Amino acid sequence: MNGPLKVALLGCGTVGSAVLRLLQDQAGEFAARIGRPVEVVGVAVRRPQHHPDVPQHLLTTDAHALVTREDVDLVVEVIGGIEPARSLMLAAFEAGKSVVSANKALLAEDGVALHAAAAKAGVDLYYEAAVAGAIPILRPLRESLAGDQLSRVVGIVNGTTNYILSRMAETGAGFGEALAEATELGYAEADPTADVDGFDAAAKAAILASLAFHTPVSAADVYREGISTVTATDVSRAAEIGCTVKLLAICERVTGEDGSDSVAVRVHPAMIPTTHPLASVSGAFNAVFVEAVAAGQLMFYGQGAGGEPTASAVLGDLVAVARNRLAGAAGQGPSGYADLAVRPMAETPTRYHVSLDVADKPGVLAAVALEFAQHGVSISTVRQTGRGDAATLVIVTHSAPDAALSATIAALREMPAVRGVTSVLRVEGLS
Amino acid sequence: MNGPLKVALLGCGTVGSAVLRLLQDQAGEFAARIGRPVEVVGVAVRRPQHHPDVPQHLLTTDAHALVTREDVDLVVEVIGGIEPARSLMLAAFEAGKSVVSANKALLAEDGVALHAAAAKAGVDLYYEAAVAGAIPILRPLRESLAGDQLSRVVGIVNGTTNYILSRMAETGAGFGEALAEATELGYAEADPTADVDGFDAAAKAAILASLAFHTPVSAADVYREGISTVTATDVSRAAEIGCTVKLLAICERVTGEDGSDSVAVRVHPAMIPTTHPLASVSGAFNAVFVEAVAAGQLMFYGQGAGGEPTASAVLGDLVAVARNRLAGAAGQGPSGYADLAVRPMAETPTRYHVSLDVADKPGVLAAVALEFAQHGVSISTVRQTGRGDAATLVIVTHSAPDAALSATIAALREMPAVRGVTSVLRVEGLS
Repeated sequence: MNGPLKVALLGCGTVGSAVLRLLQDQAGEFAARIGRPVEVVGVAVRRPQHHPDVPQHLLTTDAHALVTREDVDLVVEVIGGIEPARSLMLAAFEAGKSVVSANKALLAEDGVALHAAAAKAGVDLYYEAAVAGAIPILRPLRESLAGDQLSRVVGIVNGTTNYILSRMAETGAGFGEALAEATELGYAEADPTADVDGFDAAAKAAILASLAFHTPVSAADVYREGISTVTATDVSRAAEIGCTVKLLAICERVTGEDGSDSVAVRVHPAMIPTTHPLASVSGAFNAVFVEAVAAGQLMFYGQGAGGEPTASAVLGDLVAVARNRLAGAAGQGPSGYADLAVRPMAETPTRYHVSLDVADKPGVLAAVALEFAQHGVSISTVRQTGRGDAATLVIVTHSAPDAALSATIAALREMPAVRGVTSVLRVEGLS
Repeated sequence: MNGPLKVALLGCGTVGSAVLRLLQDQAGEFAARIGRPVEVVGVAVRRPQHHPDVPQHLLTTDAHALVTREDVDLVVEVIGGIEPARSLMLAAFEAGKSVVSANKALLAEDGVALHAAAAKAGVDLYYEAAVAGAIPILRPLRESLAGDQLSRVVGIVNGTTNYILSRMAETGAGFGEALAEATELGYAEADPTADVDGFDAAAKAAILASLAFHTPVSAADVYREGISTVTATDVSRAAEIGCTVKLLAICERVTGEDGSDSVAVRVHPAMIPTTHPLASVSGAFNAVFVEAVAAGQLMFYGQGAGGEPTASAVLGDLVAVARNRLAGAAGQGPSGYADLAVRPMAETPTRYHVSLDVADKPGVLAAVALEFAQHGVSISTVRQTGRGDAATLVIVTHSAPDAALSATIAALREMPAVRGVTSVLRVEGLS
């Protein structure tokens, strides 16, 4: 039983080919770290002719046969998407193989069932690469912070949208122009929906929240707004109040008025102060900011995408899973013991920034302020700038239930004295 | 065998009392995460009368009897220092108990022997709290990045010196004045030697290097300079070239001319560009910047000291060690398989910033430049500012062996045309 550990690789795109190359280049290191050499014994792809760089005898189109092959010890899944990845993963577990995956969509949709299947089979399911690429964040949440109580996890976890928002801030461009540039440079895909509309970030938020709060959270539980409605005006208004606009994945433990805790998970663009550690995370970088009761504030920063960075996370998991296999034990899976309720967005406390064009005449500020008060929303700061017969009102609220805030905005739009609502964006991280 | 896991706590200062309190406050959470309740069955202290808040029946002055008590499962060591911590740890291992420690000095001095003793006994030795307080960094290095090849680890790992340097930059104060302020505010101890002279950072550098490069490195292997020689002039010269001064713990893999790799580990003040992620880590915060071949650049940021943050790291380890104990297996210890040579500082490549007061007459720049060339040191940038018959020369070198650079400085001091060497500091992170 001293032969190599045998690995089946499912998928050989950017990440898969980096995994294959690094396993070959660093073969001696892996053998030393694991205590046994690692050998890739098969690579499942759809079109073998598209992979001239892979030794041809390794290629197969029959992924199912590969994962259930008797001599395979571990499966690395970097196909992405829901099917066939899910069926292959379940087949692997049933055949007694541990799985390392980078598949955020699948884990966010079906993590509970997959973990249950892995636990039943006594094997491992690791997926550090699914969130924030190379940044070690899932294992720190699951293990390093296992002795602490987390209150918030706030991430910039999508490089495409972060690049677009960074460019909008740097150049004053609108969303469309910045997206076109991102597409041209390869930072955005031809169909950018998954990134731009926040689906990618929402899947990652579900995974982060599940681990942070010991509570199963799926992508469907995550409130989601993308960045396509963010305007150049929003970005310049943010700068005027010392903020910058970021697409945030926010996972919070919220204590209700009855003292019971719930979990709020949401993805939306927000203004954050330029002094916040997340504010300087620009371009294609990712970062995850964590607040814990004892540890205080922590931040994890690095490259969130790309073949080699993602492969680094996959291979870290591979070493762990291989060591577990040699030790004859599966690692500790995530725990859902807390099983907190997921709080609807309408009841989640948020803060808003609102810019209004109003008539510059007596009584307007009073009427606007009354509208906030009638919805139970308390105002933190107001700045009024006159210009002829019109004025600009910039209001930042205190925290209130999101439904009360959005109802206030709807009511403001109907007020005769309000000529236009020029910018509405949530605000995070203000003291 | 469903009774509580029994913990012996050695030491009950700031960290120990936070550990005790959090274990009590979060008892239900710990039981759920570990799968069994945790009970502190004894607290060893020198002076029981100084601990009125601890249940008196738990207190003992006989630490040795406590760690070897038959019913004790795990030992938490937060005494610090070499002895009696080392003897107690060895006694715990011999008695089959796993140990969680926050003891950087001991781990840096004697890590190899302690790990060997733990491995021989089949128990765990975890010490996340020993480096950078609450920041998860040791486990990410040991596990998350186990599939990658690390090239550098650069840390701001001492809050006292970082506070002093931050204040010098903000106020223009000299070292003495900033130290006095730090002492008054409780950021520096009455005897600040361990922090100010870099001993604390050097111990942490040894631990980081050992894990990063799979090579045993002890505190004695670390080149060390403190910050007491950093002047207000150094700090303002740094600002002039777009840099800030930080005390850095730098662990590098260096490839020699013969192609063989070695490890260079050093602690010294250095100028880093204000655009570097470490530059904005100010006050008492810590951060560790990591460069890996596949992952690229990563940073880990958070609170580096304090009772609760350090307790968070201790308790994360406690949960891991407890789970291992219940699973009947010890976790993976660090590996020293690479066993690279430690490169002497004289042969370690560094870059210098030098400011000179020189006579403003023909031939001086040529003479100075010749001095660098004769020592084999290449100049990256020169800025000359005339003022009457004198001039200031600010030179940043390319990378050269540290011995060549320090020999150049010594030679410059002897040159008749050089009226004074006003600032010398190494430079890191410039492209």
